[in-house]
Amino acid sequence: MDQEKQSRVLAGMEQLKVTQMMITDPNALFYLTGKWIHPGERFLGLLLSKDHKPVLIVNELFSFPEDIGAVKQYFSDTDDLAPVWRKWINKDEKLGIDKTMPSGFLLKMMECGAASGYVLGSAAVDGARAVKNAAEQEKMRRSSRINDAAMQEFKKLIHKGVTELEVAEQMLGIYKSLGAEAYSFDPIVAFGANAADGHHMPDNTVLKEGDCVLLDVGCIADSYCSDMTRTYFYKREPDALQKEIYQLVRRANEEAEAMLKPGLPLCNIDKKARDIITEGGYGPMFTHRLGHFIGIEDHEAGDVSLANKNLTKAGNIFSIEPGIYVTGKAGVRIEDLVLITENGAEVLNHASKDIEVLG
Amino acid sequence: MDQEKQSRVLAGMEQLKVTQMMITDPNALFYLTGKWIHPGERFLGLLLSKDHKPVLIVNELFSFPEDIGAVKQYFSDTDDLAPVWRKWINKDEKLGIDKTMPSGFLLKMMECGAASGYVLGSAAVDGARAVKNAAEQEKMRRSSRINDAAMQEFKKLIHKGVTELEVAEQMLGIYKSLGAEAYSFDPIVAFGANAADGHHMPDNTVLKEGDCVLLDVGCIADSYCSDMTRTYFYKREPDALQKEIYQLVRRANEEAEAMLKPGLPLCNIDKKARDIITEGGYGPMFTHRLGHFIGIEDHEAGDVSLANKNLTKAGNIFSIEPGIYVTGKAGVRIEDLVLITENGAEVLNHASKDIEVLG
Repeated sequence: MDQEKQSRVLAGMEQLKVTQMMITDPNALFYLTGKWIHPGERFLGLLLSKDHKPVLIVNELFSFPEDIGAVKQYFSDTDDLAPVWRKWINKDEKLGIDKTMPSGFLLKMMECGAASGYVLGSAAVDGARAVKNAAEQEKMRRSSRINDAAMQEFKKLIHKGVTELEVAEQMLGIYKSLGAEAYSFDPIVAFGANAADGHHMPDNTVLKEGDCVLLDVGCIADSYCSDMTRTYFYKREPDALQKEIYQLVRRANEEAEAMLKPGLPLCNIDKKARDIITEGGYGPMFTHRLGHFIGIEDHEAGDVSLANKNLTKAGNIFSIEPGIYVTGKAGVRIEDLVLITENGAEVLNHASKDIEVLG
Repeated sequence: MDQEKQSRVLAGMEQLKVTQMMITDPNALFYLTGKWIHPGERFLGLLLSKDHKPVLIVNELFSFPEDIGAVKQYFSDTDDLAPVWRKWINKDEKLGIDKTMPSGFLLKMMECGAASGYVLGSAAVDGARAVKNAAEQEKMRRSSRINDAAMQEFKKLIHKGVTELEVAEQMLGIYKSLGAEAYSFDPIVAFGANAADGHHMPDNTVLKEGDCVLLDVGCIADSYCSDMTRTYFYKREPDALQKEIYQLVRRANEEAEAMLKPGLPLCNIDKKARDIITEGGYGPMFTHRLGHFIGIEDHEAGDVSLANKNLTKAGNIFSIEPGIYVTGKAGVRIEDLVLITENGAEVLNHASKDIEVLG
C-alpha cells in the first residue's frame, strides 16, 4: 500500500462522508497496492477504513506471498461471501463502493446486511488518481517518449498500396521493440474520408495519393498509458480544404496548450480550442470534447469539456485533442498529452506538428 | 431480435418470477440482437418485458440506422438517465438485472425508484445462451476447425532456442491468416516445469530437450470462441513420469468424452475423469474443474465440476480438459470442446492426442 496515495483516498472518503469503502476496480487496486489482480467473475475488494488496516478480500486462487501492507482475507470458490464481508465491513456504517462493482455483489451485500447503506465512492479514488505523483509522472513521460519514437516508425509504414489494416497490424511489434508492453487502446489508422468518421476502425481501405493519414495511437509502458494523434498527408501537399482545417486544428491545439497552468477551469481550455475552430467556421465539425484524463487507464475519470468546471491541479495529466471532421472528405486531429506543473504545464509529446507529406 | 432466443429468455424470466429485465452485458445483447455495442462507461440496456416490445436504451453516440426489432431509446451524455428509465421500466414491478451491471447504475435506479425491487436475472439469459441453436453450433464448429488447423501451424514454431514468448507472439498472425478475428483468450505456451503452473503466462523461458510443451489456445471466428489444449514433447520421447501422466490425462479426456449424452449430471462427467486420475495416484495434482461452457465468450455460465448437479442438454457446448501438474517437473493437459447432441455428443476438435515428439 502506498501510504501517500492511501491517505489521499481516505481524505476523499471524508469529503464523501463515508468511513469505509470497498474498492473493487483492478486498476484502482493496482494504483494503491502496486499489484495487478484480474479476478474475472470472482469477487475482489480492498476494504479501506478510517478505523483499521486495509483488508484485501481475494479468492485463494490469486493468493500471493508478499506483504502489501493490507490484511489478506482469502476465500475459496465454495465459500459464501456473506460471512467474509460481515467479518470486516462495519454493518452500522455506510459503505462506499466503486461505480463499476458488479451489481450481483451489491445485491448480495444488501441481502446479507453487510452495511447500513451504500453510496458511490468512486470519486474518492478517482480524485486521488487524477493527481499523479512524481513516480507516476516519470512513467507517463517514458510512455509518451516511446509513443513519440513509435510515431517516427509508423510514418515509414505509409507507402503505395498499403491498407489501414496492414499499417495497424505492424504497430504492436514496433511498440514492443521500443520497450512497451501493449497497446493502451486499439490503434486508429484512417486514410482520406475515413479520418472524418469518429468510429472508424482500420479496414482494407487502400492508401491513395492526396489522402490525409490520421494515426491515433498509444501504448502501455510499466502499466502507464500514452495516447497521441498526428495527421499526415500522402504524396501530395494538402489541398486548400485540408490545409485550412489542419492549420485551424494545430492552432487550437497549440493555443490550448499554451494557456495551461494550475487553477484553470477545465471548461475554459475546451472553450479556447473550440472558439478558434468555431471562428474558423468549422465549429459543428469539432464533434467531441477537447480531452480526457489518462494514467493507468487510457480514459480515467475527468475530462476537458465545456461541462467540467473543475480546476486543473498540478499533477493532472490529460489529452488536448481538437479535431475537424469533414464528412466524405477529410479529418484532422492533433493530440498531445500534457502534465500540469506547479506553475505551468509540460507537453509530454514531441512529435512535430508541421505539415508533413509522406511517401 | 432473434425471436426464438428472446422467447427462451422470457421463459427463463418467468421461472425467476420477473416480468421485466434489463440486460446490460454487451455479450448478452449481441446474443439477442446480433449487434455489438461497446458502450464503455456509458449506460446500455435492453429492456425485455412480457408486456411490451423490447426497448434498447443506448447513448446517441452509438446510434445506428437498422431496425433490430426493438424500440430504440436514445439519450445523450448530458441527459439524466432517471426519466429515461422511468419511461420504460414498470415501477410497480420488480426488475431483473444482469449480475455484471455496474453498481453505479443500480444505485441510481434505486434512488429514482425505477422499479419496486431488483433481483438477479442473469440466469434467464445464461440458461438460453447455454443451449446453442443450429446456426451457433455451426459457428462453433468453424471456430474449432480453425483452431485445429492453427495447432498444426503452432507445432512448426517449436524449434531449438525458441522462447515461449516468441512462439506466442506468432499465433495471432496465424489465426488471422486462417480466417479468425482475434484470440478468444491470451494463449498459454508453457515449456517443461512451467506447464505445471496454472497461472503461467508465456515468458522468456527457452525450450530445452525433453521439455513438455503445453499449448492452450483459442480464437474468435464470426464472434464465437474456440479453446483447445494439446501437450507435446520436444526432441526426446517422454520420460517415465511424463508418459505416465500423459496417458492418464488422455484416458480421462477420452473416457469423459465417450460417456457424453443429454440428461447426464455435469458432476458425473467431472467425476469420471477425476476418478481415473485419482486411481492413477495423481488426484491432488488435477487442481481444477474438468470444463467450462463456451460460446460468444470463452467462459460462459455453467461448468463441468463436482458442484454442478445440472443435467446436460442437447446444444450445450463445453470443454473437457483434465490435467496433471507435477510442480517443478511437468504438466499435461488435453482439452477439446464438445457439443451435446440429441443422442450423444460431437467432439469439435480433431487434433491428434497421440504422444508426439516435435523437433
